[in-house]
Amino acid sequence: MDGPLKNLLVVDLTRVLVGPYCTMILSDLGARVIKIEAPETGDDSRKFGPFVKDQSAYFMSLNRGKESIALNLKNEEDKKIFEKILSRADILVENFKPGTLEKWGYGWKDVCKKYPKLIYASASGFGQTGPLKDLPAYDMVVQGMGGLMSVTGQPNSEPTRVGTSIGDITAGLFTAIGINAALYDREKTGKGMFIDVSMLDSQIAILENAIARYLSKNEIPKPMGSRHPSIAPFEAFKTKDSYIIIAAGNDKLFEKLCEHLNITECVSDDRFKTNSMRCENMDDLKKIIEDKLIVNNTDDWIKGMEKLKIPCGPIYNIKQAVENPQIEARNMIVKSYHKIIGEFKLAGNPIKMSSYKDENKRGDIPDLDEHRDKILKEFS
Amino acid sequence: MDGPLKNLLVVDLTRVLVGPYCTMILSDLGARVIKIEAPETGDDSRKFGPFVKDQSAYFMSLNRGKESIALNLKNEEDKKIFEKILSRADILVENFKPGTLEKWGYGWKDVCKKYPKLIYASASGFGQTGPLKDLPAYDMVVQGMGGLMSVTGQPNSEPTRVGTSIGDITAGLFTAIGINAALYDREKTGKGMFIDVSMLDSQIAILENAIARYLSKNEIPKPMGSRHPSIAPFEAFKTKDSYIIIAAGNDKLFEKLCEHLNITECVSDDRFKTNSMRCENMDDLKKIIEDKLIVNNTDDWIKGMEKLKIPCGPIYNIKQAVENPQIEARNMIVKSYHKIIGEFKLAGNPIKMSSYKDENKRGDIPDLDEHRDKILKEFS
Repeated sequence: MDGPLKNLLVVDLTRVLVGPYCTMILSDLGARVIKIEAPETGDDSRKFGPFVKDQSAYFMSLNRGKESIALNLKNEEDKKIFEKILSRADILVENFKPGTLEKWGYGWKDVCKKYPKLIYASASGFGQTGPLKDLPAYDMVVQGMGGLMSVTGQPNSEPTRVGTSIGDITAGLFTAIGINAALYDREKTGKGMFIDVSMLDSQIAILENAIARYLSKNEIPKPMGSRHPSIAPFEAFKTKDSYIIIAAGNDKLFEKLCEHLNITECVSDDRFKTNSMRCENMDDLKKIIEDKLIVNNTDDWIKGMEKLKIPCGPIYNIKQAVENPQIEARNMIVKSYHKIIGEFKLAGNPIKMSSYKDENKRGDIPDLDEHRDKILKEFS
Repeated sequence: MDGPLKNLLVVDLTRVLVGPYCTMILSDLGARVIKIEAPETGDDSRKFGPFVKDQSAYFMSLNRGKESIALNLKNEEDKKIFEKILSRADILVENFKPGTLEKWGYGWKDVCKKYPKLIYASASGFGQTGPLKDLPAYDMVVQGMGGLMSVTGQPNSEPTRVGTSIGDITAGLFTAIGINAALYDREKTGKGMFIDVSMLDSQIAILENAIARYLSKNEIPKPMGSRHPSIAPFEAFKTKDSYIIIAAGNDKLFEKLCEHLNITECVSDDRFKTNSMRCENMDDLKKIIEDKLIVNNTDDWIKGMEKLKIPCGPIYNIKQAVENPQIEARNMIVKSYHKIIGEFKLAGNPIKMSSYKDENKRGDIPDLDEHRDKILKEFS
C-alpha cells in the first residue's frame, strides 16, 4: 500500500481487537506491518467466529495486508530473530497485559535504551498505571465500567452493550493518533517515545454529552432509547412500515419539519418553541409527529424530507448499510485475498487522502507463520 | 499545552461535534487552535444543553484551550483577516456541508494553490463525493444508516442509539489520525494534502464482527442486548442486587469461572465445550450461571473473580465511572476555566505520551470572539 507511512516498519505484537485494529490502520496508511504471533495458536482471534472454511472471518477482517511470523518470545532462538526485526522497526505496538513484555526483557525502558528512535505503543484495558492496571479487561468490561452502557438502551431495559466492540475500537483509534503524532514528533526531536492508551480511559473520553451533564450539573444520565439528551427532535419515529430517524437539530429545521408534516401550530406552541422546551416536552411532540408519520412508509417520508434538506434517514441493517450506493462510491468495501478462501470482502479505510490512491484491493490475509522464510531471509 | 504538535497552528472552522472533537485532540496534542466562529451566534453548540449560568456545558466540553474570533467569511473585511490567519496556518479543519467553503472561495483546490503546505481536513456526514454528498447528516442519521443501530439494543426492542454520538466521535478520531499522518508526510514531501472523512464511512469502519459476519456468511446480525455475537460467556448477568459483566473469552477463563461458581460439570458438558458451542447454547449456560450468581451481590462476586483474574466488572453509571480511582489515577478528569462559571471539569486526553506531561489543567474555554484583539494584533 502506498500512503503517508510507507517505508515505515511496524513490529506488531498485538492480538484480538484493540491492537490489530490500530495496526490495520497503520497498514492502510502505508506502513509495513510484521505480526509476531504465538507459535501454534497464533492470534487468539483466529479461533473467533464467524468461520469460513474453518478460517476466522473475525481475524481476517482485522489483519489484511500484514505479514505473519510465529515466534516464542521466551525462547532464545526466537528472541534473536525478534531482535533483528526490532532493530529495524520504527514502531512497536502491543496489547499484552501491563508487565508482560517487561518480563520477557522487552519493556519500553529496556528497549528504548537500545533503540531511542523506536515509537513504542501499548494499548491495554486499564492502562500501564493506576490501581487497576493488573486486572484483565475485555471490551464488555470497559463498556460497563466506562459508563457507556449506563446511557445505552431503552429506559429500564436489561443492560445493553453497544453492538460493536467500541471499547476496543476507540482505544485502537486513540493509539493510532498517538503513534502518528509521535512520528511527526520524531522528525523534530529525533527521538521515539512511549504511548500508553487504556480502553477504560478511551471510554471516558467519548462520553460527550453524558459526562458534560454529570460534571456540570451532577445529573446522572440514563438510557433514552433512540432519543438524544440535548437535541429535539432527534430520534427514531414509527412510520407505517418501520421507522424513520429525524434529526431536526435547530429551530429552522424544526420549522421546516412542521411545515412538511402539516403541524405548523407546533412552531409557536409554548411547549416546543425552543430546543430546550422541545427536549423537555419531547413525549408530547413525539406523539404529534408519529400521528402524522404513521400514514406513510419510511421510504416515502425520506424522499420528501430529503428534497427539503431535513436531516433524516432509515435504520439500515448491515446488508442495507453495506449495499448503500454511497458506501460503494466511497470505496468503503474493499477486497483482500486469503489462500484458502480466495477473495474476501472487508470494510475499507475511511481516511481519504488526496496524495494517495484509496485502493480497492488490500494486501492478503496472512496464515499463521506464512511469511517466516521471507522474513528470516530479510532479517538475517 | 506542550505536546508533539506544539508550534503548529490550526485554523478551526468547525462547529458542533465531529470537527470540534477533532480539533480538541489536536489542541491536547499541543497545537494552537484558532476557532473561527460565525458572528453573533457562534458555534451552534453554544445553544445546546446542559447549561450552567446560561453557558453550554456541551460547548465547553469540546472547546477548551481554543481561541475564538468571530468572522463572517462572506464579508470582505473579515475575509482579509481570515486570509492572514490562514497564511500562517499548518492545518485547516472544517465540517461544513460539502461545497460551502468552495462557495466562499476557500475550497481545497483554491487554497492549496496559494498554500501548498497546508493540510486541509474536511469531516462531513457523507463525504465530499458520492450520490449522497449533498444531504445533511447528523449523528443519529449515520448511526441509523451505518448499520450500528441494527445491532444495538435488546432483541425486538424499539430502535436504540448508542448513548454517545459515536457517529461524530469516530469520524473526529479518523480525521485526527489523517491529520497527524499528513503532518508526518509533509515532513517527507514538503506538501500538504486534502483529507476527506465521512461520518457514514466511519460507521462502516467500526462494524467489526457484524460486518465480517455479513460479508463472509451473508448473515444479517441482530441486536443481542449485552451479549457478544462471537464470544461466550461475554455479557451481563443478574446478581442479587444488580448486574455483573463477565468476559470469560477463552476456554481457560471459562474453566476458572466454572470452578469459582461450582459448576465444573459445565466444562465437559457437550453444549459448552468450546467457544462456538457456548455461543450456540448461551441461553442454557446463562440460566446455569445466573442461578449461582443470584445469591450474592455484584461487589462480592467481583472481589472473588478479580482475585482469580477472571475478567469481570460492574455496570457503572456516569458518576461511578468518573469517580473510579483508576480514572483519577490516569488523570482522565481535567480542569479548565470559564470566565463566567469559573473552574470546570472535563474529560481528559487518553493518549499518554512519555515525552510530554499529561497536564491536569487545560487551556480556558473561549467566549465567542474572546480573542479578537489579540489575534488581530498578531495577524496584522
